[in-house]
Amino acid sequence: MNNFTFYSPTYFAFGKGTEKEAGRLIKRFGGSKVLIHYGGGSVIRSGLLDRVKESLNKENIEYIELGGVKPNPRSGLVYEGIDLCRKEGIDFILAVGGGSVIDSAKAIAAGAMYEGDFWDFFEGKPIEKALPVGTVLTIAAAGSEGSGDTVITKEEGMLKRGAGSEVLRPKFSILNPELTQTLPAYQTACGAVDIMAHVFERYFTNTKEVEITDRLCEAILLTMIKEVPRVIKDPNNYEARANIMWAGMVAHNNLVGVGREQDWASHGIEHELSALYDVAHGAGLAVVFPAWMTYVMKHDINRFAQIAVRVWGCHMNFANPEETAREGIERFKQFLKSIGMPTTFKELGAREEDIPLMVEKLGLGENGTIGSFVRLNSKDVENIYRLAL
Amino acid sequence: MNNFTFYSPTYFAFGKGTEKEAGRLIKRFGGSKVLIHYGGGSVIRSGLLDRVKESLNKENIEYIELGGVKPNPRSGLVYEGIDLCRKEGIDFILAVGGGSVIDSAKAIAAGAMYEGDFWDFFEGKPIEKALPVGTVLTIAAAGSEGSGDTVITKEEGMLKRGAGSEVLRPKFSILNPELTQTLPAYQTACGAVDIMAHVFERYFTNTKEVEITDRLCEAILLTMIKEVPRVIKDPNNYEARANIMWAGMVAHNNLVGVGREQDWASHGIEHELSALYDVAHGAGLAVVFPAWMTYVMKHDINRFAQIAVRVWGCHMNFANPEETAREGIERFKQFLKSIGMPTTFKELGAREEDIPLMVEKLGLGENGTIGSFVRLNSKDVENIYRLAL
Repeated sequence: MNNFTFYSPTYFAFGKGTEKEAGRLIKRFGGSKVLIHYGGGSVIRSGLLDRVKESLNKENIEYIELGGVKPNPRSGLVYEGIDLCRKEGIDFILAVGGGSVIDSAKAIAAGAMYEGDFWDFFEGKPIEKALPVGTVLTIAAAGSEGSGDTVITKEEGMLKRGAGSEVLRPKFSILNPELTQTLPAYQTACGAVDIMAHVFERYFTNTKEVEITDRLCEAILLTMIKEVPRVIKDPNNYEARANIMWAGMVAHNNLVGVGREQDWASHGIEHELSALYDVAHGAGLAVVFPAWMTYVMKHDINRFAQIAVRVWGCHMNFANPEETAREGIERFKQFLKSIGMPTTFKELGAREEDIPLMVEKLGLGENGTIGSFVRLNSKDVENIYRLAL
Repeated sequence: MNNFTFYSPTYFAFGKGTEKEAGRLIKRFGGSKVLIHYGGGSVIRSGLLDRVKESLNKENIEYIELGGVKPNPRSGLVYEGIDLCRKEGIDFILAVGGGSVIDSAKAIAAGAMYEGDFWDFFEGKPIEKALPVGTVLTIAAAGSEGSGDTVITKEEGMLKRGAGSEVLRPKFSILNPELTQTLPAYQTACGAVDIMAHVFERYFTNTKEVEITDRLCEAILLTMIKEVPRVIKDPNNYEARANIMWAGMVAHNNLVGVGREQDWASHGIEHELSALYDVAHGAGLAVVFPAWMTYVMKHDINRFAQIAVRVWGCHMNFANPEETAREGIERFKQFLKSIGMPTTFKELGAREEDIPLMVEKLGLGENGTIGSFVRLNSKDVENIYRLAL
């Protein structure tokens, strides 16, 4: 196990009706003038935004609103938010929505405390301060409610990039599984794949002797395998929604990823897909991950056999562990299909002829690599895209 | 799943040499005049205390020392610590040691900010403020490094009681597995049982549909079953020590226990044993838990069959799940024996004739109960003690 630090100071309020706590929690964490940030009309139509505002009113907290966040959130709205925060003297940002809204809020929070262009942070500049952010989560997926990470797409060139900092961890996150019950099956499944992908990025590691985090990763995956089909079948299954929602937080606040080298190649490879076609991140991951697994499997057959046996319930073929490893990947693909996810470029609506463009935009150049489990160069990435055709 | 809140704002620095971070972390979390609290001579002999003081010197942090914490920490030293904090204007307490030292530090931290008798908190008064506490952990066991709980024994009557509050969560905890390598096998095993017991107290619940926390609990237990025999065999196995140490934190910061009713009867039943005989808490738990399990098993055969299959690797006897449930308890007992733990009163050095006294001291009276998985009255507790003879 490697040395590590772990710091997850987010306060979580979980369960039915917890959005009513928003005002009280903003006050507890020092907010007095709030930017409420959200996406499209669904939080308005559902009445959620009204309930949240009511809870702020009860605490006499001032607020202004900025809606319009799109999936794969854009830099344009971030700039708008930063200006608004400065002009209005905002001291707290409340994100009401999913990962895109939270990521946009985090980018605004960092940008508002920085004199330069916030995009600097997405080109590597460390984020040292940010306005405090709270969240009311509406989809179990990105894990942004418990993480210090944000992913933003720069409209100029459709560049999708991530940034992260301890100071971006939300002060509080409100997780009410009821709010996710209205999600269509497709979005629910996309979120589930995102959660599982956050585990895979940590699970496939070259760090030896990490049993505790291996087992915790497997715990999340086993939960997803049980609970996701239940919500696809019955969207109103509160209990299954609740298990998935907490799993989504645990999958990405990094408790299960500490002390080990993590990979993250597949996220980078997927980002080019969702940036180019504006498809859901989870759907893109469903296409990329089985291809990545197949491509890198031979690097550590035992690890792939381990996940096949412990998570996918395969019987170990002791005479031929590679067969077990392959069976695990195959069961994952079957699982993805069973919950309505695409597993090929064709099903996703991506085109073979765009592969060179995506490889180029990934920007590895001649000598660059992505990932750490296996360091992939541009040619490897091209091969993985082609495996996913 | 029940509604819940979860807040674990402790900063963890984990790995080799991390005790050198103590000074920097105290500064980060606002300490300027520190009480270093510790137990016996081992932290002096090992040089740990010197290394910690050196890291405080480097940051020009003033400190005074208070050693002498004993296992099952006593109220007397807590009063002494409170006086010292007031007299010296202490603004931060650094606990260097195991759960007993940390618990003692927490009690001092709460008492120093309270005008009345600190024992009030152990009789139910809520703890609203406390001095900040940091820890340098030397044994994987109590989980106090990540929890807001403390257990103190009042010398008058040897009353062992717990108290808890969000404000008692350590600001930081330094976990260096190397520091645990010098522990004798018996103490190592006692710590391991304590960790597993923290999971059992959460696992046996009447709350339905808690797959994510079930699986996370099982992840910790599976890790312990793999790693503990390795350190008993080879105390210098750093990797196994590291896995156990992180497992110990995760087992008790409550991440794996949220959203579910928890039991905690066995801890109460054990406290009377360790208070009366001054035996290690973990050894007492090794005696109490199998007896408790056997006594309550029929309340939920399926749950006991689940742990037998998922954790202890039993094959499910579908025709007779009770047999599987019993087999799981039996394997747990065998595991305890294999790591050198007592499983009977006799092995622990406890006496049958003291049972009425312990039942009386537990204080349930005629109508009181303990536990929530099964509510146990005084007669039940007596039966459990007798099962452990």
